[in-house]
Amino acid sequence: MNVVALPAALKPAPKPSFEGDFALPGEFSLEAGGVLRSAKLRYAIYGKIGPSRDNVVLACHALSGSAQVAEWWPAIFFAEGLVDQEKDAILGINILGSCYGSTGPTSIDPDTDQPYGANFPLVCVRDVVRAQALLLDSLGISRLRLAIGASIGGMQVLQWAIQFPTRVSHAVVIAACPLGAMGLALNHLQRQAIMLDPDWNDGDYSAEQSPGRGLALARALGVISYKSGELFEERHRRKPDRGGEDPWKDEGLPGGRFDISGYLDHQGEKFNSRFDANSYLVITRMMDLFDPTRAYASPAEAWGRIQAKLTMVGISSDWLFPAREVQSLAAEIKAAGVRCEYRELISNHGHDSFLAEPQHLLDILTS
Amino acid sequence: MNVVALPAALKPAPKPSFEGDFALPGEFSLEAGGVLRSAKLRYAIYGKIGPSRDNVVLACHALSGSAQVAEWWPAIFFAEGLVDQEKDAILGINILGSCYGSTGPTSIDPDTDQPYGANFPLVCVRDVVRAQALLLDSLGISRLRLAIGASIGGMQVLQWAIQFPTRVSHAVVIAACPLGAMGLALNHLQRQAIMLDPDWNDGDYSAEQSPGRGLALARALGVISYKSGELFEERHRRKPDRGGEDPWKDEGLPGGRFDISGYLDHQGEKFNSRFDANSYLVITRMMDLFDPTRAYASPAEAWGRIQAKLTMVGISSDWLFPAREVQSLAAEIKAAGVRCEYRELISNHGHDSFLAEPQHLLDILTS
Repeated sequence: MNVVALPAALKPAPKPSFEGDFALPGEFSLEAGGVLRSAKLRYAIYGKIGPSRDNVVLACHALSGSAQVAEWWPAIFFAEGLVDQEKDAILGINILGSCYGSTGPTSIDPDTDQPYGANFPLVCVRDVVRAQALLLDSLGISRLRLAIGASIGGMQVLQWAIQFPTRVSHAVVIAACPLGAMGLALNHLQRQAIMLDPDWNDGDYSAEQSPGRGLALARALGVISYKSGELFEERHRRKPDRGGEDPWKDEGLPGGRFDISGYLDHQGEKFNSRFDANSYLVITRMMDLFDPTRAYASPAEAWGRIQAKLTMVGISSDWLFPAREVQSLAAEIKAAGVRCEYRELISNHGHDSFLAEPQHLLDILTS
Repeated sequence: MNVVALPAALKPAPKPSFEGDFALPGEFSLEAGGVLRSAKLRYAIYGKIGPSRDNVVLACHALSGSAQVAEWWPAIFFAEGLVDQEKDAILGINILGSCYGSTGPTSIDPDTDQPYGANFPLVCVRDVVRAQALLLDSLGISRLRLAIGASIGGMQVLQWAIQFPTRVSHAVVIAACPLGAMGLALNHLQRQAIMLDPDWNDGDYSAEQSPGRGLALARALGVISYKSGELFEERHRRKPDRGGEDPWKDEGLPGGRFDISGYLDHQGEKFNSRFDANSYLVITRMMDLFDPTRAYASPAEAWGRIQAKLTMVGISSDWLFPAREVQSLAAEIKAAGVRCEYRELISNHGHDSFLAEPQHLLDILTS
């Protein structure tokens, strides 16, 4: 998912009123059996948490986001509409497994005094949400006014509503549902790309010699799944690479690219400079494993726990989380007696529409 | 594209009545500027070419096919319907750049006495078709009763109809058109996967140490593009790998796969044992470059050359060559005065439907 340009009126990006770390309990047990020792969560607050602590909006980030909400979703939170700019406080929390401050594969494993690398344990969305709830406890926040997120951020929001039913007033889940076979396939091949890079070295690499080409290929493949064929056609068609390469000239690979190929390579390289390959492995697996009804006797039991008002948004051109899947999940949840409504964002930007079409998204959420 | 099982009635696969090599002229000049010296085409004939040589059906193969039509498309050619089993002769020709007998990257470059490897020149569909026409000259075949192919095979057929207008009576183009941006992107990332494998070694590898993991990943990505999300959902959903892996168990990568991932890995490994990585690079580039109007003053001039009756088939769930693109191309060709008709194969098998649904395809072509 790409970071959208901040509207001119919002430059420079708003700064958090607070940014810091929250220490999880000494041993934080994980769903899949592992344990994280001395782990922490990086979080950021924009605005001021009120005395009654009932003005907090939780912003759950997607795969490559961070606690700094203003860096990746400014046009949703710092524009009029969803958030009251005077009264609300926005809370961003970096997810476990990431490389933006919370404990992840680049952190030091206290058992070995070495970075976790590929030994970082399997973390599920349930773990992420339970850790976030502990942070909320420490801040004295018993109930969120709003929790909102897209993609794996949307998974967190839905998990919040099930796992802590009394702690969310309004949950907005955008372009998220358990991944289908095509989504699982795409994530799997992205991981294969990383592991194919000889510099991955079974996850034991240094910052100086990291699997950059593998991560770039994974990201390029990710970008394909975040966009739509229609958007690619509109933007790139069969144009040669804008850098001047000629696909019809026999210059040997990797030259002679079309524009779409140059674009994807560029996206991969950019990402490579800001993300960690092992984190990518951990978070895509977390995404694969999301299946919020799994811990309950039946799906209806899971959905029936939800007390929040739930808004689910599908994106018409999303093929990673197809709108019809999100819609059908919303119908299933509603059938369990939940106040659940489905809205559809009509856009050809694919999954990334939640970033690329912020005004459109705001319109849908506030109409 | 996968090979479908031969109907029980056709086992064992029919044997060619002739299989052999045709030597191209000493120097065969290529569209993109290169030259192939002492190149050859592997071809196979099923049935008998009649005295007037007007009973020949040309079967153009897709990316990983061969001259042995009975191995990859038996249910189209050796069943009643399209081909007269008594009277017709079927001609299969392996394309330049392949690893199934015609000159390709695994062949010896007479200039160096070493395999071409990554030095194999850029070959276009126009070159492939011009070489095929020379073979037809040598066989005394002035006109094909029928030319049929799907995917890059369909590209060849359309190119035949434009480049040699008097030599094709009926041209059947299935699931083929110039690749759009999404198709170009998918092919590009497949090539990147091969080149990421350290054993690719800039194309200079031995059969004993070939870039098998890169080729397997490329193939797995190809398989995604040949199938549909709907089919994957129907077959694999979120089921764990049938080999018994448990995605929710923390066993470390690459274990814990879902069924779709195990399936894709298996497809990649199978392919790896039968195909050459450099051939894969050459043929996917050939596919990218297909743009049959490029050599003419206008598209209308190119299409206006066609004298054959032209049947174009789109596949409803194909996202590599979307049906609407094939349909729109057919309309454009028809508007240029060509006897062109469009048919649609309704199937959830994606691009691979031409292999997976032979009876359905025969029904469409003979109704």
